[in-house]
Amino acid sequence: MDYIKVAVDAMGGDNAPYEVIKGSVMALSKNEKVSVVLVGKEEEIYAGLKQYQYDESRISVVNATQVIGFNESPAVAVRKKRDSSIVVAMKLVKQGEADAFVSAGSTGAILVGGLGYIGRIKGVERTPLATVIPTEKGGSLLIDCGANVDARSSHLVQFAKMGSLYMQYFCGVSNPKVGIVNIGTEEEKGNALVKETFPLLKECRDINFCGSIEARDIPKGNFDVIVCEGFVGNVILKLYEGLALTLLKKMKEGMLSTKISMLGALLSKRSLKKVMKTFDVSEYGGAPLLGLKNLAVKTHGSSEAIEICNSIIQCVSFVNNNINDKISECLTKEI
Amino acid sequence: MDYIKVAVDAMGGDNAPYEVIKGSVMALSKNEKVSVVLVGKEEEIYAGLKQYQYDESRISVVNATQVIGFNESPAVAVRKKRDSSIVVAMKLVKQGEADAFVSAGSTGAILVGGLGYIGRIKGVERTPLATVIPTEKGGSLLIDCGANVDARSSHLVQFAKMGSLYMQYFCGVSNPKVGIVNIGTEEEKGNALVKETFPLLKECRDINFCGSIEARDIPKGNFDVIVCEGFVGNVILKLYEGLALTLLKKMKEGMLSTKISMLGALLSKRSLKKVMKTFDVSEYGGAPLLGLKNLAVKTHGSSEAIEICNSIIQCVSFVNNNINDKISECLTKEI
Repeated sequence: MDYIKVAVDAMGGDNAPYEVIKGSVMALSKNEKVSVVLVGKEEEIYAGLKQYQYDESRISVVNATQVIGFNESPAVAVRKKRDSSIVVAMKLVKQGEADAFVSAGSTGAILVGGLGYIGRIKGVERTPLATVIPTEKGGSLLIDCGANVDARSSHLVQFAKMGSLYMQYFCGVSNPKVGIVNIGTEEEKGNALVKETFPLLKECRDINFCGSIEARDIPKGNFDVIVCEGFVGNVILKLYEGLALTLLKKMKEGMLSTKISMLGALLSKRSLKKVMKTFDVSEYGGAPLLGLKNLAVKTHGSSEAIEICNSIIQCVSFVNNNINDKISECLTKEI
Repeated sequence: MDYIKVAVDAMGGDNAPYEVIKGSVMALSKNEKVSVVLVGKEEEIYAGLKQYQYDESRISVVNATQVIGFNESPAVAVRKKRDSSIVVAMKLVKQGEADAFVSAGSTGAILVGGLGYIGRIKGVERTPLATVIPTEKGGSLLIDCGANVDARSSHLVQFAKMGSLYMQYFCGVSNPKVGIVNIGTEEEKGNALVKETFPLLKECRDINFCGSIEARDIPKGNFDVIVCEGFVGNVILKLYEGLALTLLKKMKEGMLSTKISMLGALLSKRSLKKVMKTFDVSEYGGAPLLGLKNLAVKTHGSSEAIEICNSIIQCVSFVNNNINDKISECLTKEI
């Protein structure tokens, strides 16, 4: 049987390597088509693996002695730390020894490494990070949420196309509704970038462009693909996280402020937890860096085993659905 | 006695004119230094005023037959509707017949009208809209939240200075901490605009610049003045509103999903409402358009009487604290 082989950065994220190892073992039992290469300090990895029973033919270990931290300059770290888990894993993908890459490590290093080692699909100008954010109706794809700054209109058009293909073939949304983040819904509103991009999106026959979306309406979930440049996208993603956390904290404080409401809190705790879970950005699995020759998935820095597992399984679906071929086809046909 | 005379757009906002009239009457009793000129369709205003008892010497009415709607092009509307409540009220300010202006109407029209009729303070390059947004520690001033797009670094530096003065002299925050919205906290992070602005802010001796702030940390309230260009600021402000509403809605649904949690909801309702109120953007009064020769305050489109009242009283404090003189002094001393 041909497995989809995923190179996993065992040293990336706050809970590495143990949650990463645990998540990798989980992935094997959840999806029979996947095999994992754990890349990182082999002693630690073997020590971690010892705790689990798994099909040894489907997990291999590749040693990498260095780790790239969150606070390092990505460009410098990728250049200098040739034996880091990110660089070694990327090389495996480059050499065809793995089909995809998963890491909970530095987004910047994954981006720099992805561009340097895996490379862009022909025709792709920029590789956006795409994240599914929770909404009232399920989830919308936010693209780009921070891989590129100072994007041009042609980049945003490609983001719209790649995002549409991802939502259609990966998430199963037919004819996904595409919107561009704007400061008003009328066509004449916006900054120079949005004003330039809007008519280009309107002309696109490959996508179902439905106009501008104000940030106020993002949580309502009326759009499937939300296009913006990376600075704005990063602000949206981070504010989503921060505001949800703060509101939850304030509510807890509020509910614990009187004896009666404490009792109320106790009774409604379970239902509330369920709701908050549907609104937790980290529940939505990894964020693919779209437009690379092979898939690279960035999972939340604080990922636990279940998120690592989901991100690994995500790779199987991405590869099996030939999403990269579809991106390549869509973006090169006009060149 | 010399009153601070506030020209109030009686026709602006979703609840005009009745809530505007009610709020104006409230302001008189809450602050003895204020007088109000209600500008709009006089018949409607007089009919509304009839319901209240008030000191007639402190409320006057100026007729204006037209209204500028939320969906009109601001530039066209201000140019063509010379007898609209916004334009007539702005003219009163220009002619010295009023000291400040308050409206719950179209932000764009207030901006265009403010620039055209009231005019910028000498030395001010752009007039930002500044809004206090709720945080865990109270509130932070978000500046610019949408008055200008495609700002330059020199504009952002002025926003930082004006925002600092506002927080210091209007909100009573000594040595306000200034941060710039960024996609990371390291100095080398950011888009071209932020990278260019960062060293300029660092050099500013007039402000207490404390570096970059990620959107995730905005709700924590560690900064008093949060500087960003208007597109990003508008996204932050609107997402704040939208996400809080959606989370509240989801929580309600969650709490009503089982009988036990319904009982819990009943018991904790009061405490929860209190918490949500502290996180409601519209609770924080009006947003001043800083840098105009006279104060123009934009209040939320859905403002009710209490918000109109607060915005009117805000004008008294702004004028009495000579904030415009301080802005003028601070911004011209380097020219």
